[in-house]
Amino acid sequence: MDIDSGLLAPVWAGTGLAALVSDDAWLRAMLDAEVALARAQAELQLIPADAAERIAAGADKGQFDLAALAEQARGAANPVVALVKQLTSAVDPATAEYVHRGGTSQDILDSASMLVAKRALEAIEEDLRRTAGSLAGLAAEHRHTPMAGRTLTQHAVPISFGLKAATWLQLVLDALDRVRSVVLPAQLGGAAGTLASYQEYAGRQPIGPELAAAFARQLGLAEPVLPWHTARTPIADLGSALAFTAGALGKLAVDVQVLSRTEIGEVTEPAAEGRGVSSAMPQKRNPVLATLLLSAAKQVPAHALILVQSLVAEDERAGGGWHSEWQPLRESLRLTAGAARTAAELAGGLEAHPSQMRKNLDLTGGGIVSERLTIALASTMGKAAAKDLLARLNRQASAEGRSLADVLAEELPDAPDVSAPEEYLGASGELVDRVLARATETLGE
Amino acid sequence: MDIDSGLLAPVWAGTGLAALVSDDAWLRAMLDAEVALARAQAELQLIPADAAERIAAGADKGQFDLAALAEQARGAANPVVALVKQLTSAVDPATAEYVHRGGTSQDILDSASMLVAKRALEAIEEDLRRTAGSLAGLAAEHRHTPMAGRTLTQHAVPISFGLKAATWLQLVLDALDRVRSVVLPAQLGGAAGTLASYQEYAGRQPIGPELAAAFARQLGLAEPVLPWHTARTPIADLGSALAFTAGALGKLAVDVQVLSRTEIGEVTEPAAEGRGVSSAMPQKRNPVLATLLLSAAKQVPAHALILVQSLVAEDERAGGGWHSEWQPLRESLRLTAGAARTAAELAGGLEAHPSQMRKNLDLTGGGIVSERLTIALASTMGKAAAKDLLARLNRQASAEGRSLADVLAEELPDAPDVSAPEEYLGASGELVDRVLARATETLGE
Amino acid sequence: MDIDSGLLAPVWAGTGLAALVSDDAWLRAMLDAEVALARAQAELQLIPADAAERIAAGADKGQFDLAALAEQARGAANPVVALVKQLTSAVDPATAEYVHRGGTSQDILDSASMLVAKRALEAIEEDLRRTAGSLAGLAAEHRHTPMAGRTLTQHAVPISFGLKAATWLQLVLDALDRVRSVVLPAQLGGAAGTLASYQEYAGRQPIGPELAAAFARQLGLAEPVLPWHTARTPIADLGSALAFTAGALGKLAVDVQVLSRTEIGEVTEPAAEGRGVSSAMPQKRNPVLATLLLSAAKQVPAHALILVQSLVAEDERAGGGWHSEWQPLRESLRLTAGAARTAAELAGGLEAHPSQMRKNLDLTGGGIVSERLTIALASTMGKAAAKDLLARLNRQASAEGRSLADVLAEELPDAPDVSAPEEYLGASGELVDRVLARATETLGE
Amino acid sequence: MDIDSGLLAPVWAGTGLAALVSDDAWLRAMLDAEVALARAQAELQLIPADAAERIAAGADKGQFDLAALAEQARGAANPVVALVKQLTSAVDPATAEYVHRGGTSQDILDSASMLVAKRALEAIEEDLRRTAGSLAGLAAEHRHTPMAGRTLTQHAVPISFGLKAATWLQLVLDALDRVRSVVLPAQLGGAAGTLASYQEYAGRQPIGPELAAAFARQLGLAEPVLPWHTARTPIADLGSALAFTAGALGKLAVDVQVLSRTEIGEVTEPAAEGRGVSSAMPQKRNPVLATLLLSAAKQVPAHALILVQSLVAEDERAGGGWHSEWQPLRESLRLTAGAARTAAELAGGLEAHPSQMRKNLDLTGGGIVSERLTIALASTMGKAAAKDLLARLNRQASAEGRSLADVLAEELPDAPDVSAPEEYLGASGELVDRVLARATETLGE
Repeated sequence: MDIDSGLLAPVWAGTGLAALVSDDAWLRAMLDAEVALARAQAELQLIPADAAERIAAGADKGQFDLAALAEQARGAANPVVALVKQLTSAVDPATAEYVHRGGTSQDILDSASMLVAKRALEAIEEDLRRTAGSLAGLAAEHRHTPMAGRTLTQHAVPISFGLKAATWLQLVLDALDRVRSVVLPAQLGGAAGTLASYQEYAGRQPIGPELAAAFARQLGLAEPVLPWHTARTPIADLGSALAFTAGALGKLAVDVQVLSRTEIGEVTEPAAEGRGVSSAMPQKRNPVLATLLLSAAKQVPAHALILVQSLVAEDERAGGGWHSEWQPLRESLRLTAGAARTAAELAGGLEAHPSQMRKNLDLTGGGIVSERLTIALASTMGKAAAKDLLARLNRQASAEGRSLADVLAEELPDAPDVSAPEEYLGASGELVDRVLARATETLGE
Repeated sequence: MDIDSGLLAPVWAGTGLAALVSDDAWLRAMLDAEVALARAQAELQLIPADAAERIAAGADKGQFDLAALAEQARGAANPVVALVKQLTSAVDPATAEYVHRGGTSQDILDSASMLVAKRALEAIEEDLRRTAGSLAGLAAEHRHTPMAGRTLTQHAVPISFGLKAATWLQLVLDALDRVRSVVLPAQLGGAAGTLASYQEYAGRQPIGPELAAAFARQLGLAEPVLPWHTARTPIADLGSALAFTAGALGKLAVDVQVLSRTEIGEVTEPAAEGRGVSSAMPQKRNPVLATLLLSAAKQVPAHALILVQSLVAEDERAGGGWHSEWQPLRESLRLTAGAARTAAELAGGLEAHPSQMRKNLDLTGGGIVSERLTIALASTMGKAAAKDLLARLNRQASAEGRSLADVLAEELPDAPDVSAPEEYLGASGELVDRVLARATETLGE
Repeated sequence: MDIDSGLLAPVWAGTGLAALVSDDAWLRAMLDAEVALARAQAELQLIPADAAERIAAGADKGQFDLAALAEQARGAANPVVALVKQLTSAVDPATAEYVHRGGTSQDILDSASMLVAKRALEAIEEDLRRTAGSLAGLAAEHRHTPMAGRTLTQHAVPISFGLKAATWLQLVLDALDRVRSVVLPAQLGGAAGTLASYQEYAGRQPIGPELAAAFARQLGLAEPVLPWHTARTPIADLGSALAFTAGALGKLAVDVQVLSRTEIGEVTEPAAEGRGVSSAMPQKRNPVLATLLLSAAKQVPAHALILVQSLVAEDERAGGGWHSEWQPLRESLRLTAGAARTAAELAGGLEAHPSQMRKNLDLTGGGIVSERLTIALASTMGKAAAKDLLARLNRQASAEGRSLADVLAEELPDAPDVSAPEEYLGASGELVDRVLARATETLGE
Repeated sequence: MDIDSGLLAPVWAGTGLAALVSDDAWLRAMLDAEVALARAQAELQLIPADAAERIAAGADKGQFDLAALAEQARGAANPVVALVKQLTSAVDPATAEYVHRGGTSQDILDSASMLVAKRALEAIEEDLRRTAGSLAGLAAEHRHTPMAGRTLTQHAVPISFGLKAATWLQLVLDALDRVRSVVLPAQLGGAAGTLASYQEYAGRQPIGPELAAAFARQLGLAEPVLPWHTARTPIADLGSALAFTAGALGKLAVDVQVLSRTEIGEVTEPAAEGRGVSSAMPQKRNPVLATLLLSAAKQVPAHALILVQSLVAEDERAGGGWHSEWQPLRESLRLTAGAARTAAELAGGLEAHPSQMRKNLDLTGGGIVSERLTIALASTMGKAAAKDLLARLNRQASAEGRSLADVLAEELPDAPDVSAPEEYLGASGELVDRVLARATETLGE
């Protein structure tokens, strides 16, 4: 049965990214953890090296029945107990003694989750880098392209499109920083985090922390300070970093949505066969990439909330708290991975329309540079009087359907002409440069 | 690829319930909506009746490729455009003219979601009824079984176990009311909710609302007052009802967890082969059903939050808001359905241990009836003095390791003996009866 | 110290609504609950009637020190213990025996919360009614005013502005239904929900449920089936209803934001002295009412999430769960009340600009009626071919900067002229009528 | 009117911490930002130095009316416009020209929020340090104190209480790291983030970024890379760090709740006059500090969700998104500050009861070391057989009411005696040392 092929999640469906966090991926990661445990024990000469390799072979070649594992997971409230049985059946009886030796379910499942997360974060990082590269290109190209700055939906003062792209870029760089800085430790603690079982099998040698370090090395994960069965920092951190990333890309999405509105038309999403089509309206070219991005941005924070709540974990293993992490972790990884991939597509082909930007700048007949006019007049009449005057003139222009420049010329024939929007971009260019410098540093050469 | 077989969601894995909300189920429901649209148009004599039946046959026998649909959903940001193509290919060219005639993606997908929700709610309702029935049995049986009432984790005053079961029952009945009262309307509006396309195909007859009514009847859904493309009441309501239900069952879960703690031991989950086992500790019998219940209770509210946020939907179709509903709707349906099934198992076999309850009642050496002693003494020495006295005696008993009764007898040899916990159950029995009466009314005979 | 005067919450600051849910309001409601408890006991002849009235007088005239109550609340983790002391000090020693007699903190605080909620819901209901009335007026007036329907930010097909207003109205009526249907019960259970203390003071008469009923009557609240110390249905329900209401008004907000964008200009918020001003830009008239509405819609669902999570309440009083309800309940009440008041202002004065709507309708040079053209051509060339043709012509028109009508006339000189947007409103009028009929029914005459 | 004195928030009421984030604090911080803007402009010789000082004097001595500011905030949807008016009135007319010169509301309010956050984070950091110090003491003292490790509520294997305290400590250190690493930048961008107004007043010199740096220095805040009007990284980061901290302390809370249950009794909260009292039950000593901690842990993640959602901010200033940040930011700061203070109290006086821990360890008659017995027997009979045997013997012991040791001795008279729980603590001691070493490093000497 196809429980979930991505039909309801077009932000990641069809990207191939879902395979990174599929049940298969988790199964393989749990097997990787079992193998790593055996190899780490072999490395410390606690079990025969060939036993570890036979376990690795069993994990590699064994037939594992996902549906059965899922169903049996109800018995223990996690899939590891059933998996250990299947893995044990995949090796010879002598080797069976060394399977999951000293292990507890949470050591395997948590370590597997970190492995899965690591692989997904790598994909996310790669797509964020691509996105950042494209945005840097847009920012540089449009360093001086004037457009309307908008606040609370209204034209405010001019900005450059480069500055807008730099703002998107800044957020993507922030996301990259956060994704890169999540520490993903292996989990090894035994039944209640004391490592007692591992040491007992080792003839009561105090090798627990050393074994945890070897296990982490085998998996390519960070060494934990101590078992984190109920110190759920990595889970909370993943949630934060993913929610941040999805949210940061959501900013790009809402801006693209606004700027591609029929009435505004300042940007267009990259065209592709079948993209943006409607089932009923042949004229439409919907900003679907922005739509998909936003669909992720609206979901991931809620998953992250579940993940941060898992910090409140009683005892040495939380009953329910731990179990509520797994699906939200998967969802937030795949939604964010899909969003990052989608953002890379969007940023890679976003078309800007400077002439339409210019046209919109002129819509208010000079109203958009009222601030500048105020400042110009303030030197002679004072700030408050200038502001009041401009407010009155804007109302008059609006009421009479005339341009502000026109009304102003009538009222104050000698007022300085500071009405060219492209001359009121402030430090847009310098600000773009600052973000580009940061991008160069973050992304390397 | 097995993207999601339930490996990480034991609350519903293996219950069969996931099939109700699988991609297959959504696909079938979308096809049901396409067929219903054709049949409704035939019913109003807008298209030939046999065209509708050929569409139904195509929907029934056609080969639909879920993976392709999912992948192509990226193009339109929803799977309907691709589905219409596949359905069109499944009928003869003449019939093709009548497929999705006048339709818009949202009409099909929203109606399908309502159908899926309806079927899942029916399963939830059935399991809530079973749960309620079992809890009613426990409440009646233990109407007078005394146990410690606990507040802020401390023994407070005695209650009856029947009253505790009645409290669980009350919440399950509340959940039933909420699940039953969600209105699930069909969606029919055309491109922007005016029904214009349907009327245009009908030669500009004003049949829109009538067609919507016929469509709703075909699907067994409620007739909408008006298209709800961006009036997302049904989505928000589903979220509320499901979060309520999962939360209500979460109350049962946390109580079972507390009461089955090793030190408390007042209830035991129903035994079953392989249930509650640990991968390392042979002595354990974990309260896994409560654990699973709680895992759902901790997730569904976050999904419901996404769903209620979808009310803030701009324009005539929200870009991103609509698209963020689908997966949380599925997740909250299957988590809640799994929780209801799990609750039915738990309530159906929960073992109470009155002797252990009694033993715990005696743990404080009478401290648990301090309130009653206070009241008894208040009539002579006043409320405040009585309370102060009891506080002091409790501290003394605790410090000296003696029972409160003992210390009290020494201090006030003539104090009335009101120390039997089972005689201080207040209105527990009457309260049980009130809930049982409500259950009878709600559940029918 | 002014901890919170509303400086950071302009959606309710200055409306007077905050007083409904202030600390003062809660203090008064707790006193009301203490008085009601005494009067209910007097009604059942359990205490002297004049004692109850002396308690009422003490509650009325006593000096209660909020800051001290708040500070002392840390000791018991709730303010009732300290309040009872202050109330006791406000009456003579003989009456003191009857203060809070048999009571527990949760009985008082929960009942007070229901009282506060009741008064706030009444204000919300009143403002929703006003909002609905104004929206009904807009819907009726603009039943046939054509404007662009927009989906995924792009022009789709025409709608009437009346239909848009009717959609807002529909949501407000849904909110009214939900606000009205929340049941707010009194809370009376004693220490652990058995009513034992009340009965013990009554000489062990089984008057518990009767007393609860009298208490509820005194407060004008619903009679509870059983104490709901850890059956938090009313709290969850309040959260749902408030999140729904804030979200429903958020729909109005985002539409007003879109429609008042500088480039769109189809509606304007009601003008008022000082409203919509900017600190820097004299030309601006910001849609601040929509902004305030949206600020509430973005917050209340998160508070509601905390409230629904309180269902998972262990034992007979939850340690932490109960205590996490109070502030979110207040926040969601005052945010929603502020939103309802703001919506009433917004709906009451919203200006529609039909000529600008018309202008925007023409922006796509006929593209907005492509669906209609498709249908017209489908009868001769088939649906698929017609859709392909229109897609091609739209692309051509867009590329050549010509109108669709123009390009079409060139390609198909004999095509029917169905390009008038105002003739393609479908069932807009009928749908408006359906919602107006519902409004009449819901709002009364 | 006392809108909010903390009556409903005992986690921070009465601690004095609320003053850090009160309306007064925000007002002062906004004034600080206005003064810093003037001084930064003076520093760059853009305005006279004495004008800046007169503004500072006005800010210091002026009478500011909070209630009026709050009320007028409705007009502009933020309080800055009204504040600038009040500040302008507090200086002489010549100086008035230099008030808020070039400024925009968001520059002032965002910078003020960062200042407020900075001061609150300092308080949080200090209390986390105290908490960590106390927990380090507990961990060291109880490095070898044996107690039951519990998983899914059941006794699992022994741990040391020191390891449990070390786990709490680890989380507090993680929280410290996160609180310390939040970057709090000043905000300076002018109307739409280009710094144009500031440069225009400066005679079109390109001093924007330099002014922003000077402004940040004046405020003791970080220099921003670029204006973050709609790049809300600091807000999202604050939310994450605060939710993490509250959650980390929530772990301490739930463990204290469990361990102080009447039946478990292994720890007691520090005693204080009036702490833990009940309004009805004189025998009770409620774990109120844990209760308060948990009340914060249950709320802050929801506020953090609102804050991370603010990343999705359209245009150059978000209409509604920005406005929804302020109150959740305040709430999460004061809840977390209150939680940190409460944790310091709790950790500073937590009493452990080793004899009760020992008593509970013996409750299962040896069951708690079943894992160790399994390992001991596995060397002769194999792992699977040993586990099955122990499972059977545990069932038998439980059914017959005997100890596991007893049943085992009967079945396997020669089995090794590995039943002393205190000898099965694994690497508990070494793990404690690792966390203590980290604490020394983090906390300094």
